[in-house]
Amino acid sequence: MTTDTNWQEAARDRIRQAYDPELLRQAGHRLADLLAEHLQGVYRQRHDVLNWREPSENVEVAASILREAEAANPENANGSAMNSSLAAAAGGADPGRLARRFSELVRLALSRGLNLHDPRYIGHQVPASVPIAGLFDAVGAVTNQVMAVYEMGPWATAVERALVNRLGEQIGWRVGEFSGLVTHGGSLANLTGLLTARNVSLGDAWERGVGRTGPPPAIVVHSDAHYSVMRAAGVLGLGTENVLRVPLDSGRRMDPNRLEELLRSLRRENRPIVAVVACACATPIGAFDPLEQIAEVCRRYEVWLHVDAAHGGSACFSRRYRHLVAGLDRADSVVWDAHKMLFVPALCAFVLYRDKRHRFEAFRQDAPYLFDPSAPGIADYDSGLKTIECTKRAAAFGLWGLWSLFGPQLLADMVDVTFAMGRQFYEKLKAAPDFQPLHEPECNIVAFRHVPEALRDTSPESIGQFQLNLRRDLIQSGEFYIVPTKLDGVGALRVTIINPLTTPDHLDALLDALRAHGRRLVK
Amino acid sequence: MTTDTNWQEAARDRIRQAYDPELLRQAGHRLADLLAEHLQGVYRQRHDVLNWREPSENVEVAASILREAEAANPENANGSAMNSSLAAAAGGADPGRLARRFSELVRLALSRGLNLHDPRYIGHQVPASVPIAGLFDAVGAVTNQVMAVYEMGPWATAVERALVNRLGEQIGWRVGEFSGLVTHGGSLANLTGLLTARNVSLGDAWERGVGRTGPPPAIVVHSDAHYSVMRAAGVLGLGTENVLRVPLDSGRRMDPNRLEELLRSLRRENRPIVAVVACACATPIGAFDPLEQIAEVCRRYEVWLHVDAAHGGSACFSRRYRHLVAGLDRADSVVWDAHKMLFVPALCAFVLYRDKRHRFEAFRQDAPYLFDPSAPGIADYDSGLKTIECTKRAAAFGLWGLWSLFGPQLLADMVDVTFAMGRQFYEKLKAAPDFQPLHEPECNIVAFRHVPEALRDTSPESIGQFQLNLRRDLIQSGEFYIVPTKLDGVGALRVTIINPLTTPDHLDALLDALRAHGRRLVK
Repeated sequence: MTTDTNWQEAARDRIRQAYDPELLRQAGHRLADLLAEHLQGVYRQRHDVLNWREPSENVEVAASILREAEAANPENANGSAMNSSLAAAAGGADPGRLARRFSELVRLALSRGLNLHDPRYIGHQVPASVPIAGLFDAVGAVTNQVMAVYEMGPWATAVERALVNRLGEQIGWRVGEFSGLVTHGGSLANLTGLLTARNVSLGDAWERGVGRTGPPPAIVVHSDAHYSVMRAAGVLGLGTENVLRVPLDSGRRMDPNRLEELLRSLRRENRPIVAVVACACATPIGAFDPLEQIAEVCRRYEVWLHVDAAHGGSACFSRRYRHLVAGLDRADSVVWDAHKMLFVPALCAFVLYRDKRHRFEAFRQDAPYLFDPSAPGIADYDSGLKTIECTKRAAAFGLWGLWSLFGPQLLADMVDVTFAMGRQFYEKLKAAPDFQPLHEPECNIVAFRHVPEALRDTSPESIGQFQLNLRRDLIQSGEFYIVPTKLDGVGALRVTIINPLTTPDHLDALLDALRAHGRRLVK
Repeated sequence: MTTDTNWQEAARDRIRQAYDPELLRQAGHRLADLLAEHLQGVYRQRHDVLNWREPSENVEVAASILREAEAANPENANGSAMNSSLAAAAGGADPGRLARRFSELVRLALSRGLNLHDPRYIGHQVPASVPIAGLFDAVGAVTNQVMAVYEMGPWATAVERALVNRLGEQIGWRVGEFSGLVTHGGSLANLTGLLTARNVSLGDAWERGVGRTGPPPAIVVHSDAHYSVMRAAGVLGLGTENVLRVPLDSGRRMDPNRLEELLRSLRRENRPIVAVVACACATPIGAFDPLEQIAEVCRRYEVWLHVDAAHGGSACFSRRYRHLVAGLDRADSVVWDAHKMLFVPALCAFVLYRDKRHRFEAFRQDAPYLFDPSAPGIADYDSGLKTIECTKRAAAFGLWGLWSLFGPQLLADMVDVTFAMGRQFYEKLKAAPDFQPLHEPECNIVAFRHVPEALRDTSPESIGQFQLNLRRDLIQSGEFYIVPTKLDGVGALRVTIINPLTTPDHLDALLDALRAHGRRLVK
């Protein structure tokens, strides 16, 4: 038997301290109290929404702690004989001391982040996630459950599959006929869906590269499609120039007639069409495309329909808002982010294929040590064959936990409450003479401008610039968090009511806060 | 003021239960005990390493719990007036009851996963991560800290930046001159690095698509490069046919002379070269390429050098093994997975660019609501400009926490101990007449075959098939977890000693277990 040398013993001692279950236990208890206490304070608006600090300052603090830790744990694994007790003395084997230090580090992190759970966080399409979903996620993080091949993450795979089945059913498909996967975010999900569309539509692009002869293939998209769709064209070798935008109707929805015109002209030019990308909903104002009509056009032209339902897919759970996604079941591929309107922590994005025959089209090869021909039936459960990630974290634990604790009713509730608040906010804006809603909201996304009387007669550009300055002033104050956008080139304010703890009172307070900050900027 | 209607009140009551800080606190305390107890048992080998069950059985269990939860929480948000007390009664507002149910669900997950922390887990390049790193990760998951723009995750951004700086320094670069980012896994990291290389090497591929005229661009790779490199060629529109493999030397390292020959012939044919992809190390046997010599060839031919150091980059922390990555500082892009040999939970992969001018080359556009021209200095801290993900989780919290608690010495220790064990395992294999090591290991990856006397005179194919059958038998028994591979087309066994709690005794036991299972299969 080989025995360890002295340096190995010393190193193993230090490693055992780090892996000590007692440290995990003590740190875990501290974490539970810290998080509960923090969230309680955040719900009650005791903190700034955004802890604004200059990036360089935050980086320096994060870096200084790394330096301190290095100084406190000097290098001694250089082969010199250092015995275990010495090592223990140098490192400080005490789990209590380490757990206290853990608490300090967690407090620091909590004090410098963005408090999404503050009801005054009304910002990006990133939710105030249900906190306990993060604890389910932690089960995977602490035990490092991953996927790629089934045997590496049997339960992670099972949970993902069970949820893929339920989400597909919510869309209106039948289990056994469709397929799906979870990936790390909506951008990757769009990339994966469009990669599949490219490989199906262009035949041998995977092996030979994007066609080097003939007219360049086109992707036909909603004019307000998320920038990840444009990026996908760049990534996939199609070229962003070959992204063709379908004009919108007055509600910023894709116009099916204009879509048909565009497809017809592409056919005339003999240009291959990779896919049509519709939105449910598009990000700028949350407009839902008329999917039934778009699907009908795509069917006639035999074109792949990809629907980016990252935000709006969750309407499938709501009896009140389901109508917004009518026709989603006719899409060839659907992207649906659970880390948006299903309120789980980032990232947990679903890609769903209506026809399961397409599930292996994104990638067309294997690695011998991963995909075992001695167990061929298992390959259908090897997530690595379908996702851009090879090793993939157990990203669906949070959603599975939420559903298992509260049922799908909670998912419906969160959609219903936040979508209804979008409408309520719009009514408030309409009623206020110094605010301009820029559209009738279909969901919880509302774009608007604050135009105090002093600015009423200035140029659109200066009113637009005022919105951006106003927002920056507001968020850096820590009072609210909202986001900027541009509509037709002019700056605007935008909220996504994606914290179900936000109430109409908070929205009233937002208008007042904007007025107050506006007064300061105008004078 | 707008007031809530009855259905909204009922929904809000259910939502408040889910967001209850007291539920989080109780569930968190339970989780701390459950995880500590579970890991204690796993360290002591009280459980099977792999809880093997047929995929369909696991999926059915996961699905049945979703169905039960649906039945227990019937839909009632259909607009009928249901008051709060009724809702509370139906949902069961009691945080104690929900926390108990949470425990049951966690126990189920723990009982059906893969126990990577069992010292008999000696499998894929996915570590028995340091458990407390998962608790740091949970801070991000519960509070949903993300990035894309700095203001969404100021502390997440800072932590990532501080670590990028330190990892670059470990490679040998100077802070301020290089750039880097974290992404969700090595495959995405390779894709990102090669996307940058493609855009730099081919000029206008991003906008116009991969060149449609002239000889097809090539990617020149290590013959054992990870399958994600091949995939990147497929994804990026270059075509897997245009991946050209450099022959290996006797140690399965890229041969710099053969590399030079290949580059010379490509130049003669006028074929654009996207990048050379070297490995530190390649996955099959953990061979480290001679990076100095390869970098010199790339310099002479002015070709982008991408080094996949997903596994071996961590050798930078080790005085004993640093020599394996000599020359890494000359790469144009480096991939380095912290969720491999820095022992944090998946996923936390670094992409590092030697020259920071390349940091925005992967993508070349923006979204007006994300990247605020009113704060241009901030863009350098907006991760979304550099990563395929738009919204990105705070994936570096675990590594920052580990380093902050234990210093970089722990990172060096884990490399040192596991790499040394690779050598020890090799010595054991050499000393055993019924085992064949297939190479001298340079790190903690060892490929080998078990050839009992009865098989000694059979064909290589049948010996290869025996390894695969033997492995499946072994892992399904729950006694050990190791992986299969093929070398030159013939099946083999492969271990990665990526649990620093594995000792030489466990390796002896592995050989015995393989003998025992082998006897059963042979007879």
